[in-house]
Amino acid sequence: MEVCVCCGSASRALAEEVCGLLGSELGDVELARFPDGEIDLRIRNTVRGRDVYIIQSTEPPVNEHLVELLVMIDAFRRASAGRITAIVPYYGYSRQDRKSAPREPITAKLVANLLTVAGANRVISLDLHAPAIQGFFDIWMDHLTAVPLLARALADRKRSDSVIVSPDTGRVKEAERYARMLSTPLVVMHKQRLGPVQVESRTVVGDVRGKYPIIIDDMISTGATIHECATALVNQGARQHILVAATHGLLVSDALALLSMPAIREVLVTNTVSLPPDKAIPKLTVLSVAPLLAEAITAIHADRSISYLLAE
Amino acid sequence: MEVCVCCGSASRALAEEVCGLLGSELGDVELARFPDGEIDLRIRNTVRGRDVYIIQSTEPPVNEHLVELLVMIDAFRRASAGRITAIVPYYGYSRQDRKSAPREPITAKLVANLLTVAGANRVISLDLHAPAIQGFFDIWMDHLTAVPLLARALADRKRSDSVIVSPDTGRVKEAERYARMLSTPLVVMHKQRLGPVQVESRTVVGDVRGKYPIIIDDMISTGATIHECATALVNQGARQHILVAATHGLLVSDALALLSMPAIREVLVTNTVSLPPDKAIPKLTVLSVAPLLAEAITAIHADRSISYLLAE
Amino acid sequence: MEVCVCCGSASRALAEEVCGLLGSELGDVELARFPDGEIDLRIRNTVRGRDVYIIQSTEPPVNEHLVELLVMIDAFRRASAGRITAIVPYYGYSRQDRKSAPREPITAKLVANLLTVAGANRVISLDLHAPAIQGFFDIWMDHLTAVPLLARALADRKRSDSVIVSPDTGRVKEAERYARMLSTPLVVMHKQRLGPVQVESRTVVGDVRGKYPIIIDDMISTGATIHECATALVNQGARQHILVAATHGLLVSDALALLSMPAIREVLVTNTVSLPPDKAIPKLTVLSVAPLLAEAITAIHADRSISYLLAE
Amino acid sequence: MEVCVCCGSASRALAEEVCGLLGSELGDVELARFPDGEIDLRIRNTVRGRDVYIIQSTEPPVNEHLVELLVMIDAFRRASAGRITAIVPYYGYSRQDRKSAPREPITAKLVANLLTVAGANRVISLDLHAPAIQGFFDIWMDHLTAVPLLARALADRKRSDSVIVSPDTGRVKEAERYARMLSTPLVVMHKQRLGPVQVESRTVVGDVRGKYPIIIDDMISTGATIHECATALVNQGARQHILVAATHGLLVSDALALLSMPAIREVLVTNTVSLPPDKAIPKLTVLSVAPLLAEAITAIHADRSISYLLAE
Amino acid sequence: MEVCVCCGSASRALAEEVCGLLGSELGDVELARFPDGEIDLRIRNTVRGRDVYIIQSTEPPVNEHLVELLVMIDAFRRASAGRITAIVPYYGYSRQDRKSAPREPITAKLVANLLTVAGANRVISLDLHAPAIQGFFDIWMDHLTAVPLLARALADRKRSDSVIVSPDTGRVKEAERYARMLSTPLVVMHKQRLGPVQVESRTVVGDVRGKYPIIIDDMISTGATIHECATALVNQGARQHILVAATHGLLVSDALALLSMPAIREVLVTNTVSLPPDKAIPKLTVLSVAPLLAEAITAIHADRSISYLLAE
Amino acid sequence: MEVCVCCGSASRALAEEVCGLLGSELGDVELARFPDGEIDLRIRNTVRGRDVYIIQSTEPPVNEHLVELLVMIDAFRRASAGRITAIVPYYGYSRQDRKSAPREPITAKLVANLLTVAGANRVISLDLHAPAIQGFFDIWMDHLTAVPLLARALADRKRSDSVIVSPDTGRVKEAERYARMLSTPLVVMHKQRLGPVQVESRTVVGDVRGKYPIIIDDMISTGATIHECATALVNQGARQHILVAATHGLLVSDALALLSMPAIREVLVTNTVSLPPDKAIPKLTVLSVAPLLAEAITAIHADRSISYLLAE
Repeated sequence: MEVCVCCGSASRALAEEVCGLLGSELGDVELARFPDGEIDLRIRNTVRGRDVYIIQSTEPPVNEHLVELLVMIDAFRRASAGRITAIVPYYGYSRQDRKSAPREPITAKLVANLLTVAGANRVISLDLHAPAIQGFFDIWMDHLTAVPLLARALADRKRSDSVIVSPDTGRVKEAERYARMLSTPLVVMHKQRLGPVQVESRTVVGDVRGKYPIIIDDMISTGATIHECATALVNQGARQHILVAATHGLLVSDALALLSMPAIREVLVTNTVSLPPDKAIPKLTVLSVAPLLAEAITAIHADRSISYLLAE
Repeated sequence: MEVCVCCGSASRALAEEVCGLLGSELGDVELARFPDGEIDLRIRNTVRGRDVYIIQSTEPPVNEHLVELLVMIDAFRRASAGRITAIVPYYGYSRQDRKSAPREPITAKLVANLLTVAGANRVISLDLHAPAIQGFFDIWMDHLTAVPLLARALADRKRSDSVIVSPDTGRVKEAERYARMLSTPLVVMHKQRLGPVQVESRTVVGDVRGKYPIIIDDMISTGATIHECATALVNQGARQHILVAATHGLLVSDALALLSMPAIREVLVTNTVSLPPDKAIPKLTVLSVAPLLAEAITAIHADRSISYLLAE
Repeated sequence: MEVCVCCGSASRALAEEVCGLLGSELGDVELARFPDGEIDLRIRNTVRGRDVYIIQSTEPPVNEHLVELLVMIDAFRRASAGRITAIVPYYGYSRQDRKSAPREPITAKLVANLLTVAGANRVISLDLHAPAIQGFFDIWMDHLTAVPLLARALADRKRSDSVIVSPDTGRVKEAERYARMLSTPLVVMHKQRLGPVQVESRTVVGDVRGKYPIIIDDMISTGATIHECATALVNQGARQHILVAATHGLLVSDALALLSMPAIREVLVTNTVSLPPDKAIPKLTVLSVAPLLAEAITAIHADRSISYLLAE
Repeated sequence: MEVCVCCGSASRALAEEVCGLLGSELGDVELARFPDGEIDLRIRNTVRGRDVYIIQSTEPPVNEHLVELLVMIDAFRRASAGRITAIVPYYGYSRQDRKSAPREPITAKLVANLLTVAGANRVISLDLHAPAIQGFFDIWMDHLTAVPLLARALADRKRSDSVIVSPDTGRVKEAERYARMLSTPLVVMHKQRLGPVQVESRTVVGDVRGKYPIIIDDMISTGATIHECATALVNQGARQHILVAATHGLLVSDALALLSMPAIREVLVTNTVSLPPDKAIPKLTVLSVAPLLAEAITAIHADRSISYLLAE
Repeated sequence: MEVCVCCGSASRALAEEVCGLLGSELGDVELARFPDGEIDLRIRNTVRGRDVYIIQSTEPPVNEHLVELLVMIDAFRRASAGRITAIVPYYGYSRQDRKSAPREPITAKLVANLLTVAGANRVISLDLHAPAIQGFFDIWMDHLTAVPLLARALADRKRSDSVIVSPDTGRVKEAERYARMLSTPLVVMHKQRLGPVQVESRTVVGDVRGKYPIIIDDMISTGATIHECATALVNQGARQHILVAATHGLLVSDALALLSMPAIREVLVTNTVSLPPDKAIPKLTVLSVAPLLAEAITAIHADRSISYLLAE
Repeated sequence: MEVCVCCGSASRALAEEVCGLLGSELGDVELARFPDGEIDLRIRNTVRGRDVYIIQSTEPPVNEHLVELLVMIDAFRRASAGRITAIVPYYGYSRQDRKSAPREPITAKLVANLLTVAGANRVISLDLHAPAIQGFFDIWMDHLTAVPLLARALADRKRSDSVIVSPDTGRVKEAERYARMLSTPLVVMHKQRLGPVQVESRTVVGDVRGKYPIIIDDMISTGATIHECATALVNQGARQHILVAATHGLLVSDALALLSMPAIREVLVTNTVSLPPDKAIPKLTVLSVAPLLAEAITAIHADRSISYLLAE
């Protein structure tokens, strides 16, 4: 089986970088829109029996990118592709991984079902908001991680009195992982309502006085959580020299404005989500996951182990 | 099982009209967006064991409306709804019902698979572009038609020397149905390339000289086909008094401008696709399919025959 | 994977011709009947891991041939064949592709489901009555066409004033395809009821006076439609020199008698349906699809493109 | 849910008898053939939400009757029947319940898969050749038995020195059941090859000298087995007064001639397989399973136990 | 549909308590073992069309209880039960909810698949180790919680300077829930390796000096985690008056010995896991979830909302 | 695809013997238990794309071994094994192949469904209690037999006046197979109740006076059946020199004591079920199926025929 790497409209730059590393050309897929907005897709080269990798983050606009990915999988399947791997560097809807209130959807599972019924044979993603999403799939699923990549970058920047900060109670496990890699203490923030009339406020559990906080998260969406945490940390006596690291930099709404607070010195993200040029502010450092994906493709195609790339 | 009718964001006005006819209240579904564009859905009332009807056309923006519908089905299913019927008055992607070139998707089938895997128990649609789409479903599928509704309106407007015009070779069967209902002759248009250097032009098969043409179609998208047909008909000597009738009025791009040509006197569509106020031009007449849907819901819920509502 | 081509009882001659072209031997399948009519099947050679192609038209007696095909697929699957392709040159029940009246089956979809559950990995067919039948399958489906083959034969026979005739409103799209290939005008016939007491009669849309008609269809079943069309064309002044072309020559009931009318000069069909010697009348020309199938098998086995063989 | 009992062409007489017992009318199904032999089916009354029972033995011609049943199920499903029970009094292909040689199909399982994918919710059959066929289904399956019915008839006819004879090694378990019900000894016949050049002959295990044999079987197909057994029994000294009892009387080929041997005094079968008038010879007694089926339908519809009707 | 509540061998006492509250009798299921250890099951009363609830925790021995549950579901399904709800108060293997190392199974998902294929229509569980397990199911899944029950009991016991302690980084979210219900501060423990040669030790994040700790967890297995936490808390200056609360009290290995340390004053669990009499030590308080399950059954059967019983 | 043979805890000795014959190493699977009895599994080497064979009899404790097998399949599937074959030399629950009484499970089918949903691509078993279990699978299933192996050993031991004895009416077909291979007569035993107050006793059908009986069976569980048969045979005048042969030697409960009766001279079984050293009594001869399995693995991996290894 020959390899064929192609991409949807969300991840073209990343896919080109991956192809560059693999020394192969990006598959020729014509991806346009009909006047009414319907996806107009045609694969231009034969893909019979090929080992196809479709790179497409389901980043905003998530529904457009998701349906595009599904339509691509359908087209490759009907064109008799030998095996179809959907590489979804950022898995949209991953926060809807459970019913957090009655009668909610579990959209992360719905997406898994949609990818499966469309005809994907394997799904690859990075740093899922909830690792249990792996189990949402009965097709092959490889859950890679960019945490070592980010941790290596943080190792260059950390100080002796840095502390890893989990911005809420849902990220503590990941924060612990960073703390181990960097051999730093751990601090946990959580929201607390201190009395019947008071609004919830973010509380710090652990000691941050005089410390250099490194706030970690899996994704930065609106930046509001990071901003609140940074403010609370400073209020608790932390140094006004905060690093932020997250795999997925969505940076929607006022994210850039919120991250511009002086106490935040640098924000590290990866290119799982594409960054438009106007968002490329100086304090934002973007690490590339292309080498990681290129390695994964090479190893999977050759049936070699990728365990060293997998998230815990 | 109690009935519960609700809707997505595409078909709220239609759903409210249906509920008015049924004398019931629209189900309380909270449908919002998270800051990153992900659908934020919650059903506010219990739906355990209910007979749920979700009205949502997958009209433009088709991908947004489609995913919204899928997420709603997922939420209702996980909320233990007794039976879920997706009423999709306009079925987006219905023109992608086959591979018209190699390595194209069959998106109309993909959509059928997505609705099924999301958990719909039944799908209802109107005047599908290809009736064989019924067979894309193994769940219950009822294919209703607004053709009698449109034909009744045309019967009031037709003249003794009206002719029914099929705008291309794919609509002839439907045109024949109108011709029978209205007892008028049939004319077929098709695209022809008359020589190696000539562009394709629309040819009229049949006699239109001095006739009052009624162009019928299943949907009006950009209006370009209608406009070309009207021009060709007039060129062939038809009277400059043309009626147009179609179930689905998408009216995207320059549709309104193209339909404004004086030879077109009136355009009849239904409200399967919602019409924003700025598109409500005087020559456009919108018939409501709400009574049709209300009847279908009542009959299906009561296990009564709906054969008189079905498309042939 | 080695190739193994075999056949059911419907298509032995065609399969032998295909094997001749491929330079391979027909797979050894013992296909008999028990005294009570049950199919008694045994595959005589090992087929573990083979790339199996079963050629079997579901021509009359359709149910016998269909069940035979299903039983063969089951046997090959349980014998651990590597991949099973059902080549169904004529796909029986293809006219039951939709409910044309309430409470009808959609037998063409049922057949697709039966082939799938029996264990076929791929289905190949030619000139399906409704192209949307492709979408009835979620397994691989290749829809080939003999139209270019027939069109090439017609090109040798056509005159400057030939016209392509669609015998009813359901074939206009295919007629248009022939008209383009042969650069001839198009004429459409349809049934019309001219008044409340009159029976339906076949009406000609378009000009046929003095023309040489070429009636095209996907299949000739009883020949009644062709006979009616030929009669109507002659009545409308067409020349009594009519050619007929169709992919599938079922020729059941009185077909040969009806086609014997002198105005019909020649009838071209292919060997997708086997022609018993007693039906081989002089005016009937049978073109072979064996080269088409041999090419498809060779290309599919080698994972090469077959897009040039596909129906539009 | 209202009950609706209908039938295919194999079991009309039986279905009418069942409806007579239920005091209901047979469902109105139009079942014809197109000129090319394809099944032309239409259900004439609404069946939305009905509890449908389709009675159809897959007796010879088995493939015709099987496809007819599948098409009926498809039509009822698409017509929104509430629940579909296929009552298959005689289950064709039940002897193909295993691979008795390499690369054979397991057609009895294929049939189970076909019934399931067509849309049956429940299957009812009688005295399956292999009881394990129950497990071929994951849909509801009720395996009824006519053995008590036959045993009651035999009880009236048996003598003090009757013996139950199993005609081969595959029926011993059933023979033992009869032997218990009738309190008679058991005799087993089997085929044995006594030397390298001798043909297989049927050997009697057990004592039959001077006994009145009652040969039991699940079905009588060509009658050859029964004839051989009767001959061997007489040769071994049994009385020339043999009774034969079997649930399913297929009676194909020369069955009537073979059963006409004088030593066979009476043959008891049931009407699971329809008996054409010309096969109604005097020594053949046909018991009706209609009361059994009527009881099963009544009980299943009312969610009452049918355990007393079930085969062991 | 009548309700039928029955149980496997793991949860008989709980099921009897539930039936007492419902005023109904426990379904009559004969559950024994063949001499070789195979499960010998027979349902003694008819269950056709019943709304069946099978209560069975998959507590140790987990594999025995799991297979027992699967066999029961199979038997009820084949006995034509109308709807089958598996109530699994303690869901064994729930900690295998992801691959925490390469080439591990995701046994919690496997169990979901097994329950589904066996024929369950709905699964109910309490306080799943990972809430995302809900999404492992595409059948109906209701995730109930005993946290309010435990929190109410803790409210009676808490002091003004109590703190909620999460024993590791995976439980912080649940700990936060308790902290909100009880309006207490939160403390997080996590394992840390302080240097290259040091072993991992449990570190306290947050202030516990002079506080009354309440350690919460979803389950107590060997008690080792609780024992380590209690020791670390005391070492950090917490008061030697510790409460422990967990939904599932497995109490395997030396659990009772480890919990006997004097600093632990009381351990609250529920009866989701059955407690043998010899484990009923004085400091162990067992709260009953029977009222919760009885309410759930009543509401589900009557299609009433159970949202107030659901876990977040 | 490289071969990888591994095993569960039931069949380690057999798997090692198979690997010895194949000249390959046993796959490195870490199979332990958590303190609460949950299976703790990890595959230590990469298995991406490997052709994996898992050898695991579901012998007692059957539920433990079954779940272990399912968890292994899940782990291999999620680790991207290329193809997974479950070799189940002894298939537990094979006697639950039908409902022998109402409302029983069909556990043998449930097991087939569980293996399939866990992700097995192929199942291999030996001498299934009911050959129809093959049809319980829609995945590949190879049903091997050790009967020729046992028959060859018996051929060395048989005498001119040996008789093959079927211990009950369910094994007669297999007994006939042995009788043919060994050219000996056949005797059938069955249970009979001779009067209303008498208990059932085992009756001999056929002549055993002065004969050397060879009792054959598919498995020896408690030995009670064999013991009763031996006793009855001696009572009927058979020689006190009885051989016993069965593929599967479960030997539970008092089996060894019952088999120790002097009339039984030798008991032949195979190692499909592992024999603990304390059960290795002198009169027990254990034949190895390892060569059979090694051949099957070699042939299947190379896509060569294994028809000579298959059960009839």
